[in-house]
Amino acid sequence: MALFSKDIETLDDLFVHTLQTTYYAENQIVDALATMIDKASAPELKTGFEQHRAETQGQIARLEQVFRMHGAEPRQTSCPAFDGIEKANDSTAADIADQHVLDAALAGGAQLVEHYEIAQYGKLIAWARALGRDDCAAVLAETLAEEKATDEKLSRLAEASLNREAAHATA
Amino acid sequence: MALFSKDIETLDDLFVHTLQTTYYAENQIVDALATMIDKASAPELKTGFEQHRAETQGQIARLEQVFRMHGAEPRQTSCPAFDGIEKANDSTAADIADQHVLDAALAGGAQLVEHYEIAQYGKLIAWARALGRDDCAAVLAETLAEEKATDEKLSRLAEASLNREAAHATA
Repeated sequence: MALFSKDIETLDDLFVHTLQTTYYAENQIVDALATMIDKASAPELKTGFEQHRAETQGQIARLEQVFRMHGAEPRQTSCPAFDGIEKANDSTAADIADQHVLDAALAGGAQLVEHYEIAQYGKLIAWARALGRDDCAAVLAETLAEEKATDEKLSRLAEASLNREAAHATA
Repeated sequence: MALFSKDIETLDDLFVHTLQTTYYAENQIVDALATMIDKASAPELKTGFEQHRAETQGQIARLEQVFRMHGAEPRQTSCPAFDGIEKANDSTAADIADQHVLDAALAGGAQLVEHYEIAQYGKLIAWARALGRDDCAAVLAETLAEEKATDEKLSRLAEASLNREAAHATA
């Protein structure tokens, strides 16, 4: 579409565009987590993914709230960055036979998704503030805090058990 | 290839695979930053990208050092996650006419790349430690600290000036 026109004219347009790609990603994550719950074998990892799936539903509701606060209809715009992350995680997982190594890879893949979200919400919050919408920023900041907590939880779980189990796998 | 065999059998294999995808991404980043330097108009953003480009060369050298410490030849394996991030950043930038809005988007796009790297190095460090390779972890931790500092620098620059300038752009 950039061939004929430049669709993003203002920071407000960029903010709404990024809300739409993040809304797309969060909806994809709900499905991706269902697959990850199936693939995981460590009980704490399975439980962690289940909890995060429920939390993601709440994050989707918060994005819908911000769309409406901002006078825009909730709409998904596909995000090549998120699609690429999912493709990388799926292809790595498909290449792993050992269940413990797979658990370590699943946790690491989930952290890549968390960092995608941390970057997206970080931008959205900063842009909302620059647009004078501290009210939208405050709602988005609740989700950012959850994403950071999930990332830290995954690091702790990986270091406390998953990576150690994976290190014992032999070819 | 997963159709016929599972190539990643151990945590060591996963560690080397992730070194290879990160090595690919860092090499791509050197080229991507050259384009971003051309597109940016705010002098501090241009200078920041130039400094990070020089820093990335050092990060590539560190990855080569870790490959050798670990007895592996430095090799690139393409990473769909990084490719997707680059595609998203390029397509958003192509859709923006206003130079100030473009600067805000370029800084945000660079932060998405930084978060990709923070996640990659975070995994590599944790896996190196689990494999008893604290020496490799220490080298990788130097790069992780640089990536986090770059992300924070971009946040400060965006909040102090870029986003404010972008908010004044009108359609």
